[in-house]
Parts: sequence; C-alpha cells; structure tokens
Amino acid sequence: MIFDLDKSKEILGRTPEVLETLLHGLSKEWILNNEGQNTWSPYEIVGHLIFGEITDWIVRIQTILSESVNKLFEPFDRFAQLNEDQNRPIGDLIKEFKSLREKNLNELELLNITQKDFDRVGIHPEFGNVTLKQLISTWAVHDLGHIAQITRVMAKQYTKEVGPWINYLGILKK
Amino acid sequence: MIFDLDKSKEILGRTPEVLETLLHGLSKEWILNNEGQNTWSPYEIVGHLIFGEITDWIVRIQTILSESVNKLFEPFDRFAQLNEDQNRPIGDLIKEFKSLREKNLNELELLNITQKDFDRVGIHPEFGNVTLKQLISTWAVHDLGHIAQITRVMAKQYTKEVGPWINYLGILKK
Repeated sequence: MIFDLDKSKEILGRTPEVLETLLHGLSKEWILNNEGQNTWSPYEIVGHLIFGEITDWIVRIQTILSESVNKLFEPFDRFAQLNEDQNRPIGDLIKEFKSLREKNLNELELLNITQKDFDRVGIHPEFGNVTLKQLISTWAVHDLGHIAQITRVMAKQYTKEVGPWINYLGILKK
Repeated sequence: MIFDLDKSKEILGRTPEVLETLLHGLSKEWILNNEGQNTWSPYEIVGHLIFGEITDWIVRIQTILSESVNKLFEPFDRFAQLNEDQNRPIGDLIKEFKSLREKNLNELELLNITQKDFDRVGIHPEFGNVTLKQLISTWAVHDLGHIAQITRVMAKQYTKEVGPWINYLGILKK
C-alpha cells in the first residue's frame, strides 16, 4: 500500500474512539496491569499517546513544512507519561487524547498538504533525513501498534487461566 | 489475574463495538489486504470470529454444562470463513457478529453459571480435559488476540512507507 494522506487520516481519526470502546468501564485489572517489569499498562500506553500528541507528531510536521532552516526534530521522550499523576481516571485520559487528536487533525487540515509536500524532509535526531510521508505513515502505524499492544497486555492477564489453549493463542507468547 | 466471569464478559461484550469503531468506513486496502501468502485480512478475521460464535464457544460451554455423558467437543474449523462469499460488505459481517455475540451472551446468562461450575470439564479433541473457566478465558483472549492481529495486519500495509522508523515499530516485525 502506497502512502495516501486521506487513508492515513482514516486511521488517525478513529483511534480515540477505538480506545474508548476498548477501555471504557473496564475493571482496574484490565487497565492497570502490565506484562511484567519495565512494561506498560494500557493506562500508561494511553498516557504515552497523549504525550505524542503534545510534543511529537504535529510539531515535527510543522518543522518539516516551516520556512525555518532548522529542520532538526526535538527528541521524543517516550517515557514522559510515567512521571504523570497515575490517579486520573482512564476516561479523563482518553478524553484528553481525543481532544488533542482532534486539534492536531484540524491543524493538519490547515496546513493544506499536497502531494508535492510528501517528500519534504526533517532531520530525525537518530535517523537523519526523514520525509513528511514517512512521518505521517509512522503516526498512523504508531496508533495501530499501541492498540495491538493494549490488547496484548490485556490478553496476557489470563495467560494462566487459558490452560492448554495457550498453544493456540499466539498473542500470549509475544 | 484470576478468572472472573463478570470480568470476562466485560471483554466479550465490547468486542463487536471495538471491531466496528476499528473497521467501519475504511478504504478497502485496510480491510482486504493481508500480511502475505496464507495470512488473513481483517475481513477474513471477522469471518473467523463469526464462525466461532456459530460453531464453537457457546456450543462447547453447553457441552460442559449439559447432563450428557458425551463431553467431547467437535473440532473447530478455523478456516471455514475462507469458503464464504467474500463480497458481503464488512459492515454486514460486523453486524452479524454483533448479533451472534449478543445472542450467545444471553445464552451464557441463562446458564446461571456459578463458581462451582468453573472446574467442570469437557474433552478437547487435542488437549483432552479442559475446564469451563479455561474455555471462557480462552474465548476472551481469542477476541483480544484477533483485535491485535487486525491492527497488526493494517499496520503492515505501511511497512515500506514508514522508512527508517521501522526500527521503533515492533509491530512491523511480528
């Protein structure tokens, strides 16, 4: 599949609602348990998605499209959410993520991106030159990856309870 | 996390809505593409979930709880969906899954399962004795595994488009 801005927005636009249907009203074990030491709970993953909306994706898109000669991205703190208040209800976090994502997709709209912008570049602190289309593709894949991660973390809470069926449940072995 | 019937139903009850928010109105590439030869598209995964509702989960639960002495489960055809009409819109499939799941959760309710039933057994054609709580846990984990699989299949459509970010996107390497 070739990069397509509208098809990327199909993914980006629905992620808040997917998280809401996946997580609203769940018992705390499904939300707060993780996969073991140094792994994230669904709660922490939503926190990570919030930081991405604030500090990463749209900021980098603006860097690429700006007239500034400085195209170097700020490094993204992928662990920032671990220092946040862990007592906010998950519903609040999802609401915050939803509102940030809406705001960012509106900003994306205002940038009037056209095909000729797709190959404009920014400088990633680790990878060097990256293009706008790589960045927007990554934004969408990053959403999908974290939805998959959330369902995997939830599934693993029942690893012992499924008994011999673990042999058919690849998700419990990842 | 220890098996809990209500907490299992929290997962089972929301899966149709999760699939709907994840898949409704998407372009066909997100729905119909797969991960390569002999792998399933999101469309086929929804078809597989439908067959599970018709032939597997609730039928096996009833076998375990019935007075019959024959506790042997029928093997589950995990590929049945591949022989189905592939032209039905995905929305129809999701609607069918939703209605089957509701019916099956109603039947589950009518069975009035209590803690003393959790360790009652059926005979799996491959694993031998399995308990009711292992079966219901597996039903929930099976849902979560296939949601993760759907998002992974979707993510992989952009494997080439993310460029160097593939290094940070574990989901593209699974």
